Amino acid sequence: MTSPAKTIALLTDFGYRDHYAGVMKGVIAAIAPAAAIIDITHGIPPQDIVAGALALRHSCRFFPPRTIFVAVVDPGVGTARLPLAIETRTGARFVGPDNGLLWPAVDAAGITRIVELLSPRYRLPYVSATFHGRDIFAPAAAWLARGVALTRLGPPVKKITQLSLESGIKEGAQIVAGTVIYVDSFGNLVTNLDRARVDRFVARFHGCRLSVRIRRRAPIEMRSAYGDAPPGAPLATFGSFDLLEIAVRDGSAADYFKAGAGMPVTLRAER
Amino acid sequence: MTSPAKTIALLTDFGYRDHYAGVMKGVIAAIAPAAAIIDITHGIPPQDIVAGALALRHSCRFFPPRTIFVAVVDPGVGTARLPLAIETRTGARFVGPDNGLLWPAVDAAGITRIVELLSPRYRLPYVSATFHGRDIFAPAAAWLARGVALTRLGPPVKKITQLSLESGIKEGAQIVAGTVIYVDSFGNLVTNLDRARVDRFVARFHGCRLSVRIRRRAPIEMRSAYGDAPPGAPLATFGSFDLLEIAVRDGSAADYFKAGAGMPVTLRAER
Amino acid sequence: MTSPAKTIALLTDFGYRDHYAGVMKGVIAAIAPAAAIIDITHGIPPQDIVAGALALRHSCRFFPPRTIFVAVVDPGVGTARLPLAIETRTGARFVGPDNGLLWPAVDAAGITRIVELLSPRYRLPYVSATFHGRDIFAPAAAWLARGVALTRLGPPVKKITQLSLESGIKEGAQIVAGTVIYVDSFGNLVTNLDRARVDRFVARFHGCRLSVRIRRRAPIEMRSAYGDAPPGAPLATFGSFDLLEIAVRDGSAADYFKAGAGMPVTLRAER
Repeated sequence: MTSPAKTIALLTDFGYRDHYAGVMKGVIAAIAPAAAIIDITHGIPPQDIVAGALALRHSCRFFPPRTIFVAVVDPGVGTARLPLAIETRTGARFVGPDNGLLWPAVDAAGITRIVELLSPRYRLPYVSATFHGRDIFAPAAAWLARGVALTRLGPPVKKITQLSLESGIKEGAQIVAGTVIYVDSFGNLVTNLDRARVDRFVARFHGCRLSVRIRRRAPIEMRSAYGDAPPGAPLATFGSFDLLEIAVRDGSAADYFKAGAGMPVTLRAER
Repeated sequence: MTSPAKTIALLTDFGYRDHYAGVMKGVIAAIAPAAAIIDITHGIPPQDIVAGALALRHSCRFFPPRTIFVAVVDPGVGTARLPLAIETRTGARFVGPDNGLLWPAVDAAGITRIVELLSPRYRLPYVSATFHGRDIFAPAAAWLARGVALTRLGPPVKKITQLSLESGIKEGAQIVAGTVIYVDSFGNLVTNLDRARVDRFVARFHGCRLSVRIRRRAPIEMRSAYGDAPPGAPLATFGSFDLLEIAVRDGSAADYFKAGAGMPVTLRAER
Repeated sequence: MTSPAKTIALLTDFGYRDHYAGVMKGVIAAIAPAAAIIDITHGIPPQDIVAGALALRHSCRFFPPRTIFVAVVDPGVGTARLPLAIETRTGARFVGPDNGLLWPAVDAAGITRIVELLSPRYRLPYVSATFHGRDIFAPAAAWLARGVALTRLGPPVKKITQLSLESGIKEGAQIVAGTVIYVDSFGNLVTNLDRARVDRFVARFHGCRLSVRIRRRAPIEMRSAYGDAPPGAPLATFGSFDLLEIAVRDGSAADYFKAGAGMPVTLRAER
């Protein structure tokens, strides 16, 4: 093999206590020993499709161009929801359940082809009703890494489940209202207001002071780095997702504001 | 080297906070840089040999045939318990302490040879009394991956500690009684009743309704997938271990039944 | 490439829930696909520079000689603290923030050269204020693995932040007083008294009984292995760090003594 090893990147909610994620890696190594396996994370909160979709969406562009992503947050495993593989304009392939988890990533990358993972040849011989990560998704990714064409994995699919991370955003006269969609392990409150949207908003209110509010607490100042706020003080900044987030210097904004996913956040321009 | 890289798969109770598992991987990389290292899990509950044995037993068959497994759940580290390497009929090798941890996996794979890891040449130069994962087991696995014969690692061993995952199972007239032996991170209650045993039982009671009970609560229906139960409802199914497990759709059976490892579970055939 | 793949070893406080550590690995794979990436741990307690420094210091010597270590525990990300790469006498290279985190490891290895990671060519095109692990440190390590000389990453630095793990140690007539500097996930209380210091102390009091005390509780006996103490009993031993630690056989010393990092520990010689 002269081309560099294919990268297979894994993102699941299987956690780190059980051997489930490890078994998926065993299946991949058995089929595609030359593939380089990278764990993005297995710590997505159990069955939290939005958190998984967000993490996949904001990770994938940093990986090698032809990476094969396997994402499994799959409360509907064993039911009628389709198992999918998706090819995108960037060259990246995505494998996982049809429940919206893949949508923000593949939509941003540009879908070129979708198949349902039905071909028994590219599944494990026995497919359980509870662990498609092992029996369907890991084998599909490994066979793709081996060079099998996406179209051989199963029949084409036209339409898949969509999931918007931007639902519920409202733009008013001097205000943009969004939502906390993720709380990271530092306690940072990540909203669904991205830098492009905020920049457009700011452009309309040149010279105004911007403030961010959550839970009717005092307005929070925008900062360019966590360390620019005094120790223990809250701040708003664009985090590594390029999404507006609320943080506390050397602390947890989730604890400080007793806030979590789903809570409204407003950005206001004031003279 | 023309053959594909050897896989070394790790399973420990070292957790993810400390650097202990990482150091084992460093030791392996220093001795066998071409080996592919896969973490099965380092999240086995501390010193829970049964949970480790179960995870190893149900992971190993999904890995490449000649994988070298290193398993360390080792409350007796530094005492008289032997450090072992075991060769099996499947080609897989197993490295770890003689405390039952390896038994269910090697027994299923078919033991062909056992040695005690005594040769100083294949240990680190200084062997601590507290970290044989680093000083004895990781080096042994790495040297095996390098092609060193098992017999060179130390003298043969005839008998090792056995551990049955099926202890305490009782079969009665219309009833099979087993035990919860593992609670996974989704809160699924995994029993020691495997599909083969349940199938034999079912064959005797053709046409009967089967029900599963735990903690004298209402009988639980058998389902073929988690998603076949209504949201929030309990179900019994064969999970990814091919063991009977009690689950709750979109929830935790451990919380629902306030149940954990060691609790009895009964399967009953009723007209 | 005929030389074996370069190893890049990662140690962060990013945890396992978010995708942050995974993204760093994606960045590395995109730049240096042949590098072997090893996670030491991502479980350093958030922003605990001392814990990170200790784990790095005691891991690095077990890795292949020319390993590139990337360590990120970085409360000052986005502020004036310098991003560094350091070359050492052992051949190992270290990449991370200038906040003391790298100091114990590089000081032990012997610093030969330090640069500030300023060259835009070896950073990601857009550098955020919150995630230098992804934007500066991972790319620097990957370019080093690709063979880029350290000196090309940025201008030389003369002096960096030092961090002593041995601060607060006091030696008296018949007593040495140290501090708990780390509590591992088994609840072992790791002190900053290393074997060399204790050996020198012991040599002065030949024939004396040694005892270890914490929180004015009963003196704790020295043992050579965890398993040498009766079940449930406390013991003092040299753990895998080669540092004096207080443990409880089959239990947690942190719980037993309600003790944590920062607490004083004394070693006393008695007739």
